Amino acid sequence: MAILPFLSSRTRHSVLRGPLREAGRRALLSPAAPTYVHSPARPAEHTPTLPSTEFSSTGHRRPPPLDWTGAGARMISSSVGISHTRYGSTNHTLNSHKRFYWVPRPQRPSYRPGAGVATNEAHQSVNDSFEVQRRTFGSAAEPIQRNPAYSVLNPDDVSYFKSILGNNGVVQDKDRVAVANVDWMGKYKGASQLLLLPKSTNEVSKILAYCDSRRLAVVPQGGNTGLVGGSVPVHDEVIVNLGGMDKIVSFDNVNGILTCEAGCVLENLSTFVENEGFIMPLDLGAKGSCQIGGNISTNAGGLRFIRYGSLHGNVLGLEVVLANGTVLDMLTTLRKDNTGYDLKHLFVGSEGSLGIVTKVAILTPAKLPSTNVAFLSCNDYMSCQKLLLAARRSLGEIISAFEFMDRQCIDLAMTHLEGVHNPLPNLPYKFYVLIETTGSDESYDKAKLEAFLLRSMEDGLVTDGVIAQDISQASNFWRIREGISEASVKVGAVYKYDLSIPVEKLYDIVEEMRSRVGDMAEVLGYGHLGDGNLHLNILSSKYSDNILAQIEPFVYEWTAGHRGSISAEHGLGLMKAEKIHYSKSPEAVQLMASIKKLIDPNSILNPYKVLPRSVSAAGEG
Amino acid sequence: MAILPFLSSRTRHSVLRGPLREAGRRALLSPAAPTYVHSPARPAEHTPTLPSTEFSSTGHRRPPPLDWTGAGARMISSSVGISHTRYGSTNHTLNSHKRFYWVPRPQRPSYRPGAGVATNEAHQSVNDSFEVQRRTFGSAAEPIQRNPAYSVLNPDDVSYFKSILGNNGVVQDKDRVAVANVDWMGKYKGASQLLLLPKSTNEVSKILAYCDSRRLAVVPQGGNTGLVGGSVPVHDEVIVNLGGMDKIVSFDNVNGILTCEAGCVLENLSTFVENEGFIMPLDLGAKGSCQIGGNISTNAGGLRFIRYGSLHGNVLGLEVVLANGTVLDMLTTLRKDNTGYDLKHLFVGSEGSLGIVTKVAILTPAKLPSTNVAFLSCNDYMSCQKLLLAARRSLGEIISAFEFMDRQCIDLAMTHLEGVHNPLPNLPYKFYVLIETTGSDESYDKAKLEAFLLRSMEDGLVTDGVIAQDISQASNFWRIREGISEASVKVGAVYKYDLSIPVEKLYDIVEEMRSRVGDMAEVLGYGHLGDGNLHLNILSSKYSDNILAQIEPFVYEWTAGHRGSISAEHGLGLMKAEKIHYSKSPEAVQLMASIKKLIDPNSILNPYKVLPRSVSAAGEG
Repeated sequence: MAILPFLSSRTRHSVLRGPLREAGRRALLSPAAPTYVHSPARPAEHTPTLPSTEFSSTGHRRPPPLDWTGAGARMISSSVGISHTRYGSTNHTLNSHKRFYWVPRPQRPSYRPGAGVATNEAHQSVNDSFEVQRRTFGSAAEPIQRNPAYSVLNPDDVSYFKSILGNNGVVQDKDRVAVANVDWMGKYKGASQLLLLPKSTNEVSKILAYCDSRRLAVVPQGGNTGLVGGSVPVHDEVIVNLGGMDKIVSFDNVNGILTCEAGCVLENLSTFVENEGFIMPLDLGAKGSCQIGGNISTNAGGLRFIRYGSLHGNVLGLEVVLANGTVLDMLTTLRKDNTGYDLKHLFVGSEGSLGIVTKVAILTPAKLPSTNVAFLSCNDYMSCQKLLLAARRSLGEIISAFEFMDRQCIDLAMTHLEGVHNPLPNLPYKFYVLIETTGSDESYDKAKLEAFLLRSMEDGLVTDGVIAQDISQASNFWRIREGISEASVKVGAVYKYDLSIPVEKLYDIVEEMRSRVGDMAEVLGYGHLGDGNLHLNILSSKYSDNILAQIEPFVYEWTAGHRGSISAEHGLGLMKAEKIHYSKSPEAVQLMASIKKLIDPNSILNPYKVLPRSVSAAGEG
Repeated sequence: MAILPFLSSRTRHSVLRGPLREAGRRALLSPAAPTYVHSPARPAEHTPTLPSTEFSSTGHRRPPPLDWTGAGARMISSSVGISHTRYGSTNHTLNSHKRFYWVPRPQRPSYRPGAGVATNEAHQSVNDSFEVQRRTFGSAAEPIQRNPAYSVLNPDDVSYFKSILGNNGVVQDKDRVAVANVDWMGKYKGASQLLLLPKSTNEVSKILAYCDSRRLAVVPQGGNTGLVGGSVPVHDEVIVNLGGMDKIVSFDNVNGILTCEAGCVLENLSTFVENEGFIMPLDLGAKGSCQIGGNISTNAGGLRFIRYGSLHGNVLGLEVVLANGTVLDMLTTLRKDNTGYDLKHLFVGSEGSLGIVTKVAILTPAKLPSTNVAFLSCNDYMSCQKLLLAARRSLGEIISAFEFMDRQCIDLAMTHLEGVHNPLPNLPYKFYVLIETTGSDESYDKAKLEAFLLRSMEDGLVTDGVIAQDISQASNFWRIREGISEASVKVGAVYKYDLSIPVEKLYDIVEEMRSRVGDMAEVLGYGHLGDGNLHLNILSSKYSDNILAQIEPFVYEWTAGHRGSISAEHGLGLMKAEKIHYSKSPEAVQLMASIKKLIDPNSILNPYKVLPRSVSAAGEG
């Protein structure tokens, strides 16, 4: 039983254990006279934490009075020190009379992959690192010839852009342009000479009309947090960054409808609508940098998908500038509108290749006051699946996240993320599940979750588990899950895949991949189990052709063979443009190409991406 | 106080009344010794009904033992007979200790506007009635010239169709074709000579490839339950009815993903998935006849929209046959798939004008065990709005319907619908609201709804209300709401509009319309308040040019002026093809036309509809 040494100085959580079936349920439902069991006081240097309490089949324990000071916070354990009792063993201790505290939606630390390109601050030594980094990833772009049909930027072009954007909106400074030329992982790098920073739809329209007339290629850019090379130039495309268009246009606080410019950072929007009593229907690790226009252009999924569904369901209206500068006003704020073809869906997920999203109207659900987060372990993948099914039935309307990670993910997070700790440190389990519930009634919701977890333990689906008692614990749970991507890139080389696979087969590919790469690399599986979305990361200290050969094309063929998607939520970008046939039929790809040609006949928007060269880019050889 | 005479012989409900604020809450939370008050026994000829109970601030009453026999069922009232006490008066009686019974999702009676066209049974005297009916509706089609670019059906065509469909799949019998030529309201009638009944995607493909090569116009048809003339021919288009493609392809009972053919009747699908523990994400009054392919082609909204959102969010995959016979396989069953443009959305809501939907993969939510239905009254529209907002906050995750009706709707339903009765008969209220909740935990959900209603009464938002105590009562509530459309057409002439309007303005147009038509017609307002969707019906005994002149173009101009949609969920069809500009920008309409031309260059699919003649139909004059 490996106990990580740093745990003694970290916040811990009360542990929900079981089962002693009837005794446990009774204990839960009929609290009797309390007794107190206190663990040694937690060292004071950490965030103040609510005291944890626990259930015991042998007696009821009530938490001490709330003490928000660090010194007063304490750990409570069912036995001495941090020794835990496992489920399924004969030596059960059932935590009973568990107290749930109100856990506001944690302000999860968000990684900030790219700083704003409009400033100098984010300038890093991107040039230095790029040549090395370029080889450290699977599916990195094959060398792509520049399409000679595109014009080359000239001084007259720059003068024209200055005439419409002013000097501040036209960036030629090499350092600043360099930042915008490379993605946050340092994986994809272009050679653009020019970064444009429009402040209005009208300016975007003028930029595109001009570029179309001159046939200058353009890459639209938001927060540049993508994972497939979709938001940086491949060659010398003009970069049009929307970050300067960050105004909220209106908020309907009766219906929860937000209208804003495309450059608004997701986290800022979250903060804004939360102050109005609503939440954004999407949330993702990159929220501190990603922009809503980019979210929509990539049809971002993220952590609330299981509850609020896809952006196709939540985006009510868009304003989009087409390649020829036409402003397409589809900015309705209505929930229902069946007047003709619903064109906005063409621009949700088309990765900036059909138009530049400039304004967004989006439905924001009411913010519900009661949030609970549980961190659980399962012995096998089948239990994770069953737990999901059970959660859908029992927590139906309050479940807001169901994330899973394998042990390798936890080990990685513990090694590479600062300030996180393992909530279940006593034993290495094979799988971990994070469940979040969000509802309107604190007491009912908590009781529902508690009852569900108790049943799941009794049914043997869950082996160990903790429920966050305060925001700090909830944040820690989330930090582990959200930090895996960040931790992965610290290892050295990471081959990153984002797959949709029917849930029952979802973990098979992780195990098959593990046997394929053997000792050469570490294979991690995690993701949004509730949505059938696996993030498959293969990590090694450095790039190896041998490893890549074991991964590709196997990963795509396997996925296609199971009627999965080779990109669940990251999009195709540059990384997978040539792989689209694994997930889409030739007829569908051909129709996409026809639509691309119809809407962007000169193919100036985000060239070399999304669609394979065989069908795209009028004028390309 | 008008008491409808038939009420004495009908099932009634316990009445939730208030408020005596603290007393009421106390009564609710701390039941004391019960006393019983029984009303006279209900006559036995009606469906057995659970006995109702009620709250009183003067004492607590417990229901008698459950008695499921008709003779034992009884009405309980707070005072003698059926006299009720209003809220807001000084003479309060607060119903306390209310018992909620488990109310399964009611098997609501569905109106069946059109019988299957493939049988002879539904043949009515459509020819006799049509000439009269044609003039009885606003926005009926102006005379539209047949596009001479289309070929005229000849015997060789029929022979070819028989060669691919067999004799049974090719219907020329005049009576059967006549049924398929007219919509269920008798409002729109075509002159097709041929009805085709394909049994497979391959057959649909062959039909369209042939029609395209011959330039024979085609109208795709499902259950023919539409309200805008989208599913019947305008002239001599070949009718392709999908009713023969009614097989379920697969059901993933872990993830709740249904794959089926387009001709499956919605109600049959509902029954099927409910047996598997899931529900369809949409439900509408026409469910007994409408087909899922038609639902998708019209982007049907319906009664569960507030909970499960639009079909754009729920449809996972489609198989569509394009005009040239190409089978477009987009039949993924994945929740997430970001590989290229999400083309399926083009076919959701394009009313059969871009392709014929042949297969559908759709996400079905887990069926939750606890359903409650309340029928409430409000004194003014502002209270309805506030109630909606409060319901979003307090019932957030369990609310599954929020429907509103004005008094005129109730009066109409009582007059024209058989077997329904007014749940709140004592006083005529100005507005009625039906709230349904669906959740996973009976006791918690009921308590939530009860607490919410009590608060709403205390806050003066609700003046009177009942909660269904059994399936019969719940069905009656729903029958009122769902039967309004059916009842409307019984009056004589109905001018029917389906508008999306920001909620705060939604009822203004009803009142304005009332003052415009004066005594000439009755104006009804009802619909899905939670979605901002108003159904505006103007009823008169017969058609009048004067009335129509008061309605149009005012209704469209007013809606456009408030940035609403002139078709929230019914689509444009033939009725509103020329009105699209009221809700869509010229640039958007032009792009729709370009896409139509790209995908259906000969414009054989559902001509004269959806798009205005000014931009549509290649080859048209």
